[in-house]
Amino acid sequence: MTNLQEMGKKAIAAKYVLGALTSEEKDRALTAAADALLERTGEILKANEKDLEEGRKNGMHPGMLDRLALNEQRVAAMAEGLVQIAHLPDPIGETLETFKRPNGLEISKRRVPLGVIGIIYESRPNVTADAFGLCFKAGNAVILKGGRDALFSNIAIEAVLRDALLGVGINPDAIQLIKDTDRAVTNAFMRLNGYVDVLIPRGGAGLIRAVVENSTVPVIETGTGNCHIFVDEDADLTKAVNIIINAKTQRIGVCNACESLVIHDKVREALLPALKKALQEHHVEMRADERIRSVIGEEDCLAATEEDYGTEYLDYILSMKTVDSVEEAIDHINRYNTGHSDAIITENEAHAEQFLNGVDSACVYVNASTRFTDGFEFGFGAEIGISTQKLHARGPMGLKELTAYKYTIRGNGQVRS
Amino acid sequence: MTNLQEMGKKAIAAKYVLGALTSEEKDRALTAAADALLERTGEILKANEKDLEEGRKNGMHPGMLDRLALNEQRVAAMAEGLVQIAHLPDPIGETLETFKRPNGLEISKRRVPLGVIGIIYESRPNVTADAFGLCFKAGNAVILKGGRDALFSNIAIEAVLRDALLGVGINPDAIQLIKDTDRAVTNAFMRLNGYVDVLIPRGGAGLIRAVVENSTVPVIETGTGNCHIFVDEDADLTKAVNIIINAKTQRIGVCNACESLVIHDKVREALLPALKKALQEHHVEMRADERIRSVIGEEDCLAATEEDYGTEYLDYILSMKTVDSVEEAIDHINRYNTGHSDAIITENEAHAEQFLNGVDSACVYVNASTRFTDGFEFGFGAEIGISTQKLHARGPMGLKELTAYKYTIRGNGQVRS
Repeated sequence: MTNLQEMGKKAIAAKYVLGALTSEEKDRALTAAADALLERTGEILKANEKDLEEGRKNGMHPGMLDRLALNEQRVAAMAEGLVQIAHLPDPIGETLETFKRPNGLEISKRRVPLGVIGIIYESRPNVTADAFGLCFKAGNAVILKGGRDALFSNIAIEAVLRDALLGVGINPDAIQLIKDTDRAVTNAFMRLNGYVDVLIPRGGAGLIRAVVENSTVPVIETGTGNCHIFVDEDADLTKAVNIIINAKTQRIGVCNACESLVIHDKVREALLPALKKALQEHHVEMRADERIRSVIGEEDCLAATEEDYGTEYLDYILSMKTVDSVEEAIDHINRYNTGHSDAIITENEAHAEQFLNGVDSACVYVNASTRFTDGFEFGFGAEIGISTQKLHARGPMGLKELTAYKYTIRGNGQVRS
Repeated sequence: MTNLQEMGKKAIAAKYVLGALTSEEKDRALTAAADALLERTGEILKANEKDLEEGRKNGMHPGMLDRLALNEQRVAAMAEGLVQIAHLPDPIGETLETFKRPNGLEISKRRVPLGVIGIIYESRPNVTADAFGLCFKAGNAVILKGGRDALFSNIAIEAVLRDALLGVGINPDAIQLIKDTDRAVTNAFMRLNGYVDVLIPRGGAGLIRAVVENSTVPVIETGTGNCHIFVDEDADLTKAVNIIINAKTQRIGVCNACESLVIHDKVREALLPALKKALQEHHVEMRADERIRSVIGEEDCLAATEEDYGTEYLDYILSMKTVDSVEEAIDHINRYNTGHSDAIITENEAHAEQFLNGVDSACVYVNASTRFTDGFEFGFGAEIGISTQKLHARGPMGLKELTAYKYTIRGNGQVRS
């Protein structure tokens, strides 16, 4: 069985090395890692073929097989990702604040790496290179636990990345992959306090729940998005239909897709005919309350249940609810959302501000699609996930969100009286 | 049995109210709460007397009885604490960052309350008012679980604070005390995900470990401090002795007290005679390696075990270790410390910088006592605890550390392509 303590010790040894690297050293290593991925593409694809074979044998769903599959383009994209990370500004070393106390102590708050980051993820093998790149650039050692389905691919990618680090003289334990697929090992990984500073799960709701339930290491909860759009009484209805269609259908399986619509009663009859037409063109199933069904027609719209309002469909389904005020919309959304992203469509500034203040989500929008909740769209240049918790980071997490701070205090003999 | 879900719902209802209060409204409420504590001191002392009686009956240690005991001065100090919090600047509402994306989206990062904070603490009843005050000023609802020993006192204080809130027209569920002393209730409280945004344990190492072990709600780990002082080869030895004596003896039972000394071999013989004398005058027991014992004398200094180096004594005991370089000092400290506070005594700027960079603690000092790790000493005006984890907050936590942020995004119809 994998000796996790041993891996933890190696990660800690590596974190001290990484924390002291210059930006140039880190960027050179990332570039070398990208080159190595390109050079050794054949080896990676061979390993990936083994995973695919296994998957086919076990009757894996075609969608899953596609997520698992690598090809030359996909490996090249992984390499390109590392090059892009190399070009991002280094978050480490920044002084966030400096202040002097009356007793002469000079206190500085410096941005430092988190230390050792654990990532637990599912079948997409590109996460192996991606997560390494982001953690590494922010000065962190990373311990990865990928999905069993992608094991051979992940082993090949880890080997390439470790060799590349060795080649530029950096401790390869900056990245370590847990190769044991025993669930007991994963559970022990979630309890590796003293070695791992933070765990970030990347995957479906089930994985995230399991990590939150079982981990004693601090967790950053990511990715569940029951995102709402509220069409206010003062909405521009053309904007509303465009934004709803984009947020619902541009990509259905992602956490920032819209799952539920809240409609002010005053625009219900004006909005719904055009919206119904657009949703039907995109094959979106509608589930709504009676006031909405009476306009759409019961044959075209199921009755929404309590459960519908709480469901992240990740599918061509949309729940819909009528309200009589902004307050009621905010209450409904705060009751059912997952703290991810919610939007109001309105031309009324007071309503917009009320909504921005009242809705308790990481990202609250006025007149824009919830699909913009994304590290790249926010201009962070990279993303490790979307945090839906309040602690540490909220919303899209880029390099800065993979850092902590420390206080340095300089005195000349001060003691406390 | 306490219905925690019910309490959670009430806290959530209250958090929306608190998040929307102006600074003036919050400060008026805090002042009213302070006045109420003063006016109803008699009632609080009567309740406290019941706790003390119970404690004496159960043979409670005199030190514990003292921590539990309230009197007019102590209640007045609690009230004064609330007044001081009212005078601190309001952290809520600040815009941390604003940026515009090429597609025209305007993104702002706003400081907002965390939401609902859970606090689990031990016998000191003043925490009840203190924790309420800090959480409230930062716009948070708080659910408190105090120690069984202080139950009557806590119930009385909670009643006074709730009445004061009612008196100024604010939802009294801003503070709720769990009055059930059943351990199963405490355990359920630690798993109140969806209601509680963060749990902060305040108390001894055992309590903190239990919360970290059992909680599925995000935790901020606080308060364990195995703090080190390293006397470098280029130290001013008079400063060294003063700082060591202050950090070890000025108050022994606190997390920022020094527990372990690391001494460069080159100053060992010059430092130890004076240090021995000073430590003995303060009745500090010494436990050291052989090189140090050979100077101090074996009869005056026990042999330190591996366990000594890892122990937070909170007592008149000091472990001591010889090293031959700054690197070795840093390695030793990173191995045994708890990420709280560590100091170097040196006049050598290069060594100072090396130590500040290399030691992985919340607070790293040059030529000053570790006892300064404290929200008041840092100028935060208040403190909810000292975080020893990397996530969210590190070191002294004041009002800002009880906040989160949200992104607000304004568009004019943008959709993602």
